[in-house]
Amino acid sequence: MKLGIIGLGRMGYNLALNAREHGHHVVVFNRTLEKVKEAEKEGLIGAYSIEELVKKLEGRRVIWLMVPAGNSVDEMIDKLVPLLSKQDIVIDGGNSNYKDTLRRYNYLKSKGIDFVDIGTSGGIEGARNGACTMIGAETEVFEFLEPFIKDISIENGYLHTGANGSGHFVKMIHNGIEYGMMQAIGEGFEILEKSQFSLDFEKVAKVWNHGSVIRGWLMELTENAFRKDPQLDAIKGVMYSSGEGLWTAQEALELKVAATVITQSLLMRYRSEQEDTFTGKVVSALRNEFGGHATKKND
Amino acid sequence: MKLGIIGLGRMGYNLALNAREHGHHVVVFNRTLEKVKEAEKEGLIGAYSIEELVKKLEGRRVIWLMVPAGNSVDEMIDKLVPLLSKQDIVIDGGNSNYKDTLRRYNYLKSKGIDFVDIGTSGGIEGARNGACTMIGAETEVFEFLEPFIKDISIENGYLHTGANGSGHFVKMIHNGIEYGMMQAIGEGFEILEKSQFSLDFEKVAKVWNHGSVIRGWLMELTENAFRKDPQLDAIKGVMYSSGEGLWTAQEALELKVAATVITQSLLMRYRSEQEDTFTGKVVSALRNEFGGHATKKND
Amino acid sequence: MKLGIIGLGRMGYNLALNAREHGHHVVVFNRTLEKVKEAEKEGLIGAYSIEELVKKLEGRRVIWLMVPAGNSVDEMIDKLVPLLSKQDIVIDGGNSNYKDTLRRYNYLKSKGIDFVDIGTSGGIEGARNGACTMIGAETEVFEFLEPFIKDISIENGYLHTGANGSGHFVKMIHNGIEYGMMQAIGEGFEILEKSQFSLDFEKVAKVWNHGSVIRGWLMELTENAFRKDPQLDAIKGVMYSSGEGLWTAQEALELKVAATVITQSLLMRYRSEQEDTFTGKVVSALRNEFGGHATKKND
Amino acid sequence: MKLGIIGLGRMGYNLALNAREHGHHVVVFNRTLEKVKEAEKEGLIGAYSIEELVKKLEGRRVIWLMVPAGNSVDEMIDKLVPLLSKQDIVIDGGNSNYKDTLRRYNYLKSKGIDFVDIGTSGGIEGARNGACTMIGAETEVFEFLEPFIKDISIENGYLHTGANGSGHFVKMIHNGIEYGMMQAIGEGFEILEKSQFSLDFEKVAKVWNHGSVIRGWLMELTENAFRKDPQLDAIKGVMYSSGEGLWTAQEALELKVAATVITQSLLMRYRSEQEDTFTGKVVSALRNEFGGHATKKND
Repeated sequence: MKLGIIGLGRMGYNLALNAREHGHHVVVFNRTLEKVKEAEKEGLIGAYSIEELVKKLEGRRVIWLMVPAGNSVDEMIDKLVPLLSKQDIVIDGGNSNYKDTLRRYNYLKSKGIDFVDIGTSGGIEGARNGACTMIGAETEVFEFLEPFIKDISIENGYLHTGANGSGHFVKMIHNGIEYGMMQAIGEGFEILEKSQFSLDFEKVAKVWNHGSVIRGWLMELTENAFRKDPQLDAIKGVMYSSGEGLWTAQEALELKVAATVITQSLLMRYRSEQEDTFTGKVVSALRNEFGGHATKKND
Repeated sequence: MKLGIIGLGRMGYNLALNAREHGHHVVVFNRTLEKVKEAEKEGLIGAYSIEELVKKLEGRRVIWLMVPAGNSVDEMIDKLVPLLSKQDIVIDGGNSNYKDTLRRYNYLKSKGIDFVDIGTSGGIEGARNGACTMIGAETEVFEFLEPFIKDISIENGYLHTGANGSGHFVKMIHNGIEYGMMQAIGEGFEILEKSQFSLDFEKVAKVWNHGSVIRGWLMELTENAFRKDPQLDAIKGVMYSSGEGLWTAQEALELKVAATVITQSLLMRYRSEQEDTFTGKVVSALRNEFGGHATKKND
Repeated sequence: MKLGIIGLGRMGYNLALNAREHGHHVVVFNRTLEKVKEAEKEGLIGAYSIEELVKKLEGRRVIWLMVPAGNSVDEMIDKLVPLLSKQDIVIDGGNSNYKDTLRRYNYLKSKGIDFVDIGTSGGIEGARNGACTMIGAETEVFEFLEPFIKDISIENGYLHTGANGSGHFVKMIHNGIEYGMMQAIGEGFEILEKSQFSLDFEKVAKVWNHGSVIRGWLMELTENAFRKDPQLDAIKGVMYSSGEGLWTAQEALELKVAATVITQSLLMRYRSEQEDTFTGKVVSALRNEFGGHATKKND
Repeated sequence: MKLGIIGLGRMGYNLALNAREHGHHVVVFNRTLEKVKEAEKEGLIGAYSIEELVKKLEGRRVIWLMVPAGNSVDEMIDKLVPLLSKQDIVIDGGNSNYKDTLRRYNYLKSKGIDFVDIGTSGGIEGARNGACTMIGAETEVFEFLEPFIKDISIENGYLHTGANGSGHFVKMIHNGIEYGMMQAIGEGFEILEKSQFSLDFEKVAKVWNHGSVIRGWLMELTENAFRKDPQLDAIKGVMYSSGEGLWTAQEALELKVAATVITQSLLMRYRSEQEDTFTGKVVSALRNEFGGHATKKND
């Protein structure tokens, strides 16, 4: 298949290489043009404008967007719409909010353009060597794309999740679960670290990866991380987040699901971004008010 | 009534003054003897040793311990036992774990000495002008003490909660609720503080104290705190804790009560005592492993 | 002052009586007209249509909406706009989301009509005898209304919180805190209830209302509730919610405030509305898969 | 190696078969003697009393206890002590609290008997075909047992975690993490289940097991569970627990680790065991008190 990929970040770039390796002709565009040059050296077909990218495609065009969630997707769609023909396919392979996806689907539908949402998991390694993909699409469109999706996904690693929006939705929930799992792993190691026992965290993670109930890729990554830095001394425990955990928590609130662990994982990330909290100041002030308990003073 | 008070910290000292004001003869002892001298100036009867304190009492002796929870109470009991006679009464008015209280009750029972646990709330102000007291005691012992307890308590502010241990137990739960309430208040003001609106926190607390559903003493103290320091700039948000919240959470775990808010309040206090967390390091390392997300580096 | 009140539910009806008692002329309208008749018997001025209500007002008209949050407010505004003149004042005294309030403010501003948001706390009793009111309004408009607001509020119980939207915002946070406080109280009594001690909950609540740190109106209501039903046998523990707790949690998520206690309170309310959970099914199934642990079967 | 196994429950029985398959001579005893007969048919050496089991061993005896945590372990130790010789080895392979383990280690040490704690993960399947084992032991004792432990463990699936107690401690934390992970998975599927999309849960779990970040054994078990019962209709969502999650939460409280997700997972399990809560009754009663909100009545 010949297809275009817009966005050569970590994920888009590796996905393009992955596709090419499976014999696909990949035309690539990126806002920062140096990335395009770099891609050409790897055998990808460069395009230095969106117009050029569209022109280099033929028949029913397929364009995979791998740009940051948010406005960038809308911007790209605005630029693409006048250049595309009916039945051309735009794929949003990024981490978009499924509500935006539904809005975009309806908009493109009104223009006769097919829109597909693909949630992609597996990190950079997956993008390069076989991703896990969750596809929200009309059946005809999914079937048209299936051979290509099969190629870039790991074996058994793709699913037509259902109607448009469902690909991003399922990926969002995947990330919510991921938040909870990661926080659980982190808390477990914090207890180990504070305990009376002197433990080798890399070895603990390794043994847990061989036969235990909690074995899995996240525990393998934990093992890797401790191999590189046995006490994680170089890292500050600030847990940034990029949106999908928040959306999962918001969705849970709307659907009235008592998703305490997923929500809590997100709140602890927010807490970690703050050095001090106003909540803490208030509680500390109250303890002082009624009990004369000392507060810690700001310098 | 003539009674002894051992321990002249913030609570014990004010309680002694309170009792004296109601016409009781209060013999006081404190480990740091300067405090005893200070107390004598206020009209309290000083004792410079436990033996002296016991000697200065007569009839059925009543000795109120107001010493830090933990070993100090056992230490005092060990010193008192050889000096006391059957039916003398030892009161533990501090924040002891009710399980220790039950153990001490059984021990003193075996010596023929009566033991009473009194949970005291209302802070320093309450100790001085009328406390809220929760009394775990055998009925006969409670009735013997009641006139005195009535005097030092605020009107309607004392309750014979039931069997021994129940006074400290009810006080412990009181503190658990207090943890949850304080955290809720703190969180509310943190949202106000981060919001788009420019609010006068003292005035907000004040209006909430007049007619709102959440009016109460804690909100009054919040108002006071903001009056003194409108943004709490001088205070660092480290929320120390002294045991009763922990015991409540432990009790909930044992009784299989899903006390999520009380437990969470305690955990956020613990979190506030840490500048960085190992949990955060692990989660941050994992995000880097799978997604190449930047971690915040330690300097 | 002469003013109109639209909506004679529990809150609106009592507020109307409260205003009348302070000498105001209150024209009232309600969708269900029987309520209007009832109000007339109490000395309120009935209107049997919105048009009639508007006509019965004069000068700078003041209309207080006390209708359910959501579409009803927009509906009323749509009906009022063609009937009102510039500088007339519409008050939304209900529990509207402050984001809707900002939208309505801007819309009415464009029509030259003044809009005021008043968060009202204190329950039915407060509405009748003196509410706690938080007012978001332009200063001139607030000052015009102040004498009236002062009358219907309890002493010191009103605050011009600031710009439009801030009244509903501050009320929303008030409710968020309320959720946390109530859950903390509930959890505390659940631990008491499951404990080894035999306690009289009404008496415990009563003693806590006299001198304790956690004394306040919610604890007084707790005392009342236990007086009526000592074990709350008649009540099922389903904790409904009406929106403000959800909005507070959503706001915390957006502002990145780790409002764990407020959020948790809401999630436990949602949990209480469900007899069984899909989460529980999944966890139970997993325990069975790896450990052969028995699951509880559905009948 | 010749060794004894006491306790032929799901775990002990499969472990015995596993050991035998690797050429070990396994003498087995079980309180219910039918189990012993069954084991003999599988080529294991039956013992119909503890005395017989001890007699059938020789040299430095090794006895693996696989009995329920709690009193059973102490009971067995009491029975074994008079029958054993110095340097004989007792292994506790069950889920004992590491604090009990430390106590037992010190007790057996005083008798000259070596004690080893082995945390075993991997469920029944692991016990049969290769477990994940975490061993707390003195180095000499560990080395003596290592060839055997290697045989019954999966490749790379055993670790001498360190001093006595550490095996059970690390296993306990493993279970704590497991609680958090399972709750996160459950919550994720509950959101999927309540969403607007019509999803095939088995397929979702399957695609997540191929290349996603959250792939792992628990997700494979999730896939299996949905294969057997696509909506888990047969299962009630009551999440029982057996101690290790509780101990992890208790440990976190003592070490002042803000283990919110692990703790929360446990509390939600407790919540699931209750049809109704006293917390809910109190909150519901309070809503009725201040706002006249309807409560759900008990029948």
